[in-house]
Amino acid sequence: MTEKEIKHVFGIIGAGNAHIFDSIQKKGYTEIICVHHEQAACMAMQTYYRTSGKVTAAILTTGAGSTNGITGVVSAWADSIPGLIISGNENSKYVDLHKDLRMWGVQGYDSSLMVDKVSKYSSRVMDPVDTRHEIEKAYTLTTHGRPGPCWVDVPMNIQSANVDEAELYPYSLSENPVLDIQTGEALKAEVAGLVDRLKKAERPLFWLGHGIRLAGAHNYIKTLLEKCQIPALVTWAGIDMIDSEYPLIYGRAGTYGQRCANFIVQNCDLLICVGTRMAISQVGYDITELARDADIAVIDIDKHEIDKYADRYQYKIAADAKDFIKELLNQAAELSKYENWINQCDTYKSRYPWVNETDHPDQDGFINSYRFMEKLVGHFKENQVVTTDMGTALLSGHQVLKLNDGQRLMTSTGLGEMGYGLPAAIGASVALDRGEVMCLNCDGGMMMNLQELQTMVHLHLPIKLFIFNNDGYLMIKHTQNALFQGRRAGVDRKSGVSCPDFSALAKAFNIPAFQVRSWEDFDQVIPQVQELQGPVICEVFMHPQQVFVPKLSLAIQPDGTLVSPPLEDLSPLLTREELKSNMIIGIHPKSESITI
Amino acid sequence: MTEKEIKHVFGIIGAGNAHIFDSIQKKGYTEIICVHHEQAACMAMQTYYRTSGKVTAAILTTGAGSTNGITGVVSAWADSIPGLIISGNENSKYVDLHKDLRMWGVQGYDSSLMVDKVSKYSSRVMDPVDTRHEIEKAYTLTTHGRPGPCWVDVPMNIQSANVDEAELYPYSLSENPVLDIQTGEALKAEVAGLVDRLKKAERPLFWLGHGIRLAGAHNYIKTLLEKCQIPALVTWAGIDMIDSEYPLIYGRAGTYGQRCANFIVQNCDLLICVGTRMAISQVGYDITELARDADIAVIDIDKHEIDKYADRYQYKIAADAKDFIKELLNQAAELSKYENWINQCDTYKSRYPWVNETDHPDQDGFINSYRFMEKLVGHFKENQVVTTDMGTALLSGHQVLKLNDGQRLMTSTGLGEMGYGLPAAIGASVALDRGEVMCLNCDGGMMMNLQELQTMVHLHLPIKLFIFNNDGYLMIKHTQNALFQGRRAGVDRKSGVSCPDFSALAKAFNIPAFQVRSWEDFDQVIPQVQELQGPVICEVFMHPQQVFVPKLSLAIQPDGTLVSPPLEDLSPLLTREELKSNMIIGIHPKSESITI
Repeated sequence: MTEKEIKHVFGIIGAGNAHIFDSIQKKGYTEIICVHHEQAACMAMQTYYRTSGKVTAAILTTGAGSTNGITGVVSAWADSIPGLIISGNENSKYVDLHKDLRMWGVQGYDSSLMVDKVSKYSSRVMDPVDTRHEIEKAYTLTTHGRPGPCWVDVPMNIQSANVDEAELYPYSLSENPVLDIQTGEALKAEVAGLVDRLKKAERPLFWLGHGIRLAGAHNYIKTLLEKCQIPALVTWAGIDMIDSEYPLIYGRAGTYGQRCANFIVQNCDLLICVGTRMAISQVGYDITELARDADIAVIDIDKHEIDKYADRYQYKIAADAKDFIKELLNQAAELSKYENWINQCDTYKSRYPWVNETDHPDQDGFINSYRFMEKLVGHFKENQVVTTDMGTALLSGHQVLKLNDGQRLMTSTGLGEMGYGLPAAIGASVALDRGEVMCLNCDGGMMMNLQELQTMVHLHLPIKLFIFNNDGYLMIKHTQNALFQGRRAGVDRKSGVSCPDFSALAKAFNIPAFQVRSWEDFDQVIPQVQELQGPVICEVFMHPQQVFVPKLSLAIQPDGTLVSPPLEDLSPLLTREELKSNMIIGIHPKSESITI
Repeated sequence: MTEKEIKHVFGIIGAGNAHIFDSIQKKGYTEIICVHHEQAACMAMQTYYRTSGKVTAAILTTGAGSTNGITGVVSAWADSIPGLIISGNENSKYVDLHKDLRMWGVQGYDSSLMVDKVSKYSSRVMDPVDTRHEIEKAYTLTTHGRPGPCWVDVPMNIQSANVDEAELYPYSLSENPVLDIQTGEALKAEVAGLVDRLKKAERPLFWLGHGIRLAGAHNYIKTLLEKCQIPALVTWAGIDMIDSEYPLIYGRAGTYGQRCANFIVQNCDLLICVGTRMAISQVGYDITELARDADIAVIDIDKHEIDKYADRYQYKIAADAKDFIKELLNQAAELSKYENWINQCDTYKSRYPWVNETDHPDQDGFINSYRFMEKLVGHFKENQVVTTDMGTALLSGHQVLKLNDGQRLMTSTGLGEMGYGLPAAIGASVALDRGEVMCLNCDGGMMMNLQELQTMVHLHLPIKLFIFNNDGYLMIKHTQNALFQGRRAGVDRKSGVSCPDFSALAKAFNIPAFQVRSWEDFDQVIPQVQELQGPVICEVFMHPQQVFVPKLSLAIQPDGTLVSPPLEDLSPLLTREELKSNMIIGIHPKSESITI
């Protein structure tokens, strides 16, 4: 760990990893951040990397210590975040001896098999001399190609074995699997083909994903935009790669997209997607309806992600995002000018601000979460780091928050697990040497990692923890409205689930707490929250039925039939005339058929 | 569910199981108990069964909803507890389409594969007409042979599909796998062989495990003892099968055993183990040292468990515990009398009470957890139901608590996951129609399912929640004392981990709270706690270094070498003379060699 400059790891001690804890402690270089549930260790590990660029580890014990970590592992897997999971296990002799039994030794089981399909590499060290090789292998593979978590299981007797250091052997980079991607001349040719197409394009568009940052190429984005003069959208995971107000950046499209961004993606005639896996939340449920008059180019380091919709893509470039961008910069000298298109994009932008009174009104005395986010940005600090949980924080946050260069916004976009927000804030804060982080959380999500309030308090981390309280699981309430005529089950206090009084909880944890119920409260409270040292909780009360819009929704026709409109036709539905006026490529027959 | 009389299920709603929640709610027969983390659903499911004898289900959503449940699944697997896990997943079309991708659809992954090795049956319904068959199959297999959890994954579109009821087809019991166990004449012959051996035995002993209850045979135990007049021990999971003071019941042996019980098991000459998997915590680390002068008979429904130590067992009977006991009762008419042996057992019993001043003194003003447990029993109610978490609650609880018939004691003995106690109490309480349950918990374990305080409060469950506060992970502190010269890492406030003020937390959750720091407090508080209606928390402060004894420990010799003594030689070590005086079969050379 000294060698790799791993200054912090996350974990919980147990019988199965006590030797590892002791060794780390004795060595004295690395601080072990003790959380209170292993899922939190595997989530904090992710934002630690995203914040510092340093791969770190979660140190889990055997049995439940390992199973508890799995949600965080799948989440890292989905979001392509590197990290090492080092799990303890029973004595290695039981691996064979007890292989047909339900448990190995006392609390053991085959943890590395369990995560085999949700990790880049999972192995068990069965001979102490392999330890260095296996750890180095995991450390290397976790960032090799498309990043993702690696799991190394180390039985107790292997942990405590005395090995002659000379017997340990390193992992050699030559053992790395060959990546099935294009580089050099092959990539040059692919890019040349795309550049040819670009020259013929009238309305090209970049869609920039988190893969660019993972490839270490986010600093090239401005150069790319300046040189190409092509409009660009960012994915939710890629929001914080560039100033949200940077010229040619037009926001975020998707099923919970912005009207402006969705019009742009749907009207472009060449869509170039770099470092994004084209998730359903971005592209919608029917890929043939995405940018339906455009050619699509996808540049992804994972060929499988390209194959997913291969029929739809005219340009399929399996490549590292950095290699691609550099090559495109090389060849982008003689591109066309797309001034009309940029003007059109500007028109969309001015016509459809992210927050507006029609879509986002305050209601019944509750302030609207979108307006809250818009106003919150005004109180951001220069290097504001924000993590979000799911629900209100995820949706309004990612639809509305505007970031400057250097500010960060992190969440779990793939697995989307409730509970991610707080451990994510802890991981980011630790990565910043106990730096300041804002965590946007919700009542439901808070419960899933409630115990981590204590970790925050114990380490006195300066986390501004916002809790949006809307009486339960708001997104599911909307699902029930849409599918079950509003019948409620298990979503709010009346239907079987409630949350505690978070302000009272804050007091119990000895955390200063504030409540926001009105704009007057906002003006008074937010500056105080941002001013305070150490942890602080700010509970924000929201309408328990507030809608999340704009949103791609099924349209119910007067005759009861359902129409699933294309991505540009967000709800609340615009008049067909207004929709038409925005569609350079014409209105979709499905949209045409909708009666408002 | 109506057909199977499943009145309660446990779960959390999400996009992936909203249809199931709605259907259950509409049907109106089954109440959904909404917890705040899916691990708790899979733990509550277990004690629900253990309390009521009714198989129930955990209803999980896709993605993290499923991964969150896994700890509870492995725990049920280890402890042979039946239960259904019904997980939601993305649309079934993605299963093929996205099989090479990191995520299926939005949040999906191969959940049933992940639990394949830790469940009796795991499947995914890919055609709606298979639904009934798959659910019935899981429901049947979960209790068929050795019980264990079954997982059925149901993609969203399958959940919402309209199926003609006539197309659904049932699971037929003829599809049940054939159990590799002995019945009828074969079993008769095996038992006859054992009875022959019994007639020659002088010091026979039963060791009765939870498999007896799982086979529905715990009501035969008294008849068995009366007819055979053979002493018996119980395993930790089997403690509550019979009155702890019943004649011929001599307690609980093991690595954290009682001196009396360990002497008895080590001095017997025929050990008959029924329905127990001979876990390391019972038998120690070296099976050849268990009852080393005895023949051993093991009766287990799982042949693999017998094979584990097959070389050591003279009688290996793969059979259902009920079949075995009934057959033994049939053949037990002409057994010998073992009066001398019973007298010897009584001598051990009177010589070594479970709690004593030498092993269990109060210290530095803190009351001792063993003495606490002993005194607590005096306040038990007639049908007291107790669940425990790990650590102090597990060890002192299982070493000391005495139960009457009808009282219950439940914990996770296999996986031994911290956090089991509270959801276990919730499951038991719900099974008793919101009945009273005592939960013995610890500071460390509380944190792992802290959020379930709200479930308890929301349902107003009359749970007496005891929290033993000893500043962190006490068992690991002892590990560090034993292995690392007392070096601390990640075990208490000073070494990186702390717990909140639980009494303040109780207040925040609106739960009445008490504190016990002395015997005066005990006398004043415990009656009030037992009297109160609804949830109540009682925090008990214990010495942060209190030892858990008697315990099988390594003995460090003056020359620094380590001796691992046999099971009868518990620490604190007795004088060699006293040890000798208790060993009918003679003192073990290793014990002989130890200098005290």
